[in-house]
Amino acid sequence: MSKLRRLGAVGLAALVGLSAPAMAQGDDRISENGTVRLDGVEVPLSSFLSEEGREYLRHLIVDKPFGNAVPDIAEERLRQDGIMAAFLKPMRERYAVDIHEDRIGGVVVDVVTPAEGIAPENADRLLINVHGGGFTTGGRSASLVESVPLAALMKIKVVSIDYRMAPEYQFPAASEDVVAVYRELLKSYDATKIGLYGCSAGGVLAAQSVAWFQAHELPAPAALGVFCASLGGYFGGDATMTAGALNGYLPPLDPPPAANGPPPVPGYLDEADSSDPLVYPLSSDTVMAQFPPTLFISGTRSFEFSAALNSHNALARVGVESQLHGWDAMFHGFIYNSDLPEAREAYDIMVHFFQTHLAD
Amino acid sequence: MSKLRRLGAVGLAALVGLSAPAMAQGDDRISENGTVRLDGVEVPLSSFLSEEGREYLRHLIVDKPFGNAVPDIAEERLRQDGIMAAFLKPMRERYAVDIHEDRIGGVVVDVVTPAEGIAPENADRLLINVHGGGFTTGGRSASLVESVPLAALMKIKVVSIDYRMAPEYQFPAASEDVVAVYRELLKSYDATKIGLYGCSAGGVLAAQSVAWFQAHELPAPAALGVFCASLGGYFGGDATMTAGALNGYLPPLDPPPAANGPPPVPGYLDEADSSDPLVYPLSSDTVMAQFPPTLFISGTRSFEFSAALNSHNALARVGVESQLHGWDAMFHGFIYNSDLPEAREAYDIMVHFFQTHLAD
Repeated sequence: MSKLRRLGAVGLAALVGLSAPAMAQGDDRISENGTVRLDGVEVPLSSFLSEEGREYLRHLIVDKPFGNAVPDIAEERLRQDGIMAAFLKPMRERYAVDIHEDRIGGVVVDVVTPAEGIAPENADRLLINVHGGGFTTGGRSASLVESVPLAALMKIKVVSIDYRMAPEYQFPAASEDVVAVYRELLKSYDATKIGLYGCSAGGVLAAQSVAWFQAHELPAPAALGVFCASLGGYFGGDATMTAGALNGYLPPLDPPPAANGPPPVPGYLDEADSSDPLVYPLSSDTVMAQFPPTLFISGTRSFEFSAALNSHNALARVGVESQLHGWDAMFHGFIYNSDLPEAREAYDIMVHFFQTHLAD
Repeated sequence: MSKLRRLGAVGLAALVGLSAPAMAQGDDRISENGTVRLDGVEVPLSSFLSEEGREYLRHLIVDKPFGNAVPDIAEERLRQDGIMAAFLKPMRERYAVDIHEDRIGGVVVDVVTPAEGIAPENADRLLINVHGGGFTTGGRSASLVESVPLAALMKIKVVSIDYRMAPEYQFPAASEDVVAVYRELLKSYDATKIGLYGCSAGGVLAAQSVAWFQAHELPAPAALGVFCASLGGYFGGDATMTAGALNGYLPPLDPPPAANGPPPVPGYLDEADSSDPLVYPLSSDTVMAQFPPTLFISGTRSFEFSAALNSHNALARVGVESQLHGWDAMFHGFIYNSDLPEAREAYDIMVHFFQTHLAD
């Protein structure tokens, strides 16, 4: 798992900027036009990308704009918050919402509502968001990036939870925070009218939370969105082995991932048992069989893509309705960038999914 | 397109055996354990593969068992029929069916029925299959490989069409044959109780046929299965550029794909207009918007995988219900091998899809 974790750090680097190994200058395996060339195998920017997607992916591959993670967790959070602020800015122009801080069940949350008002059919409905950021960053920042588009496009209230993270806290602190908020919200909202979703670490946490609700005899939400993640963590399969390279992170990596600052020690799941369905629901057919309808969103140059495919198939196997949409050549967390048509196409699919599955 | 077509030939080689460029002996980029190594990027057999899947993929990568295509089309068909016969043998042991030849609307078909009898709920329902084989091979052979599992598992009658192929015939000869059979079957079956599916060229043809029915004012079938294909042909995106390499076909290819025998000239779609929705329905939102619920089945080491993702997203965009299931590291046409748990998992998903969408 430590090898996978290092590979994951490389993959994360490709977009979310958790860490960014320096590329040897003038590496002839990477062309200015974004083509990656490995032992004669040429992989240009995908023919299925939008114009904006092509240009942004080229920029990521060639310029590696997100820089390196820093060891101090407070500084790293500030750095990540800055990255998220840059994603949030065009969203605020594109999607009119009101945002206010609240405290629910003792936990700080951001409440995001559409400026135009909640749609009549969504007056009794709610989305709960749990943000990404590797279980170490993203509180109050990635939160908004994940909540603003859905609140505005679906015209629904979104509550985004500022759950406890590593290195200060470990599993199951975040699940405990989610359940505290959920219990309180169940006093005002029926579970059949609640959707739960998250991206990256938030996708993992959303899935963990559904298992946690089961174990604590709380009703499942009506629908689950596992974005940029799976029911069994981020890693495994071909995507984990190829995403870094296709995003321009080519060996030998300098500095090597292990020497590359965060992930902080201890990581949120370092001591967790991966065979525990409260950690990875994929490990229990019984737990998965009680999952609500689930939507997976990912991209083929995302290290979690293979895991998402696998979880989608696993839900089919146990008879749970699920949907998977993937975008060719899209990278980890591409939905954070609302300037990409691919991201906006994903929002539309998310909205349709929750509109369809939340009870009237 | 000719470059894509050549790449496609390489990809096809990886499984279906249409052509198989020889690997330089002792290429140190391919390990005996199936790991492919490109400029230091190591891609082992996917951690999500079943044991049987791992061993079979290793065998494909290391041993390249399907040999080279031959230039003579009659000989090539015999060679391909032999490959299909080897896939059919374990199927006949696993799935008890009766097979008989018939002629419907003037076209030869194979009618495959479950030996245990058609299920009562399927007495008025029907599946129509159009086989794969690059629009050049597979008549009466790939046909059975695609029909036997579904007939037995769903307990339903499957009619598989021996449509006209290249090089003797070109587009739209196969569509004309499908519609001739379909018109005749509509006298006995309601369109809401008919499912249509195919794999590879058959997946393309199934999609073309739905557009053809529309253009000729025939009702759409209740459900469509586009397997190992998309609504816009096989090619495009990252998968077309990477599938060959990940299946062990590494440059420089010897002999180069262009010199590698078939595809025969003229190919079935060589003169067809790719912007014509009767050729590629993906080119018309209006045509796609009238598609029935559609299931895509593919694998990430299949050259059509990116195209399948893209078509699945396109159907969502125009409001058509669709499903996509992909298997990590699975190759083009993996569903032909019923010894693979991945293939049997796919059959279960196909059966569930048609059971759900064909009218009672």
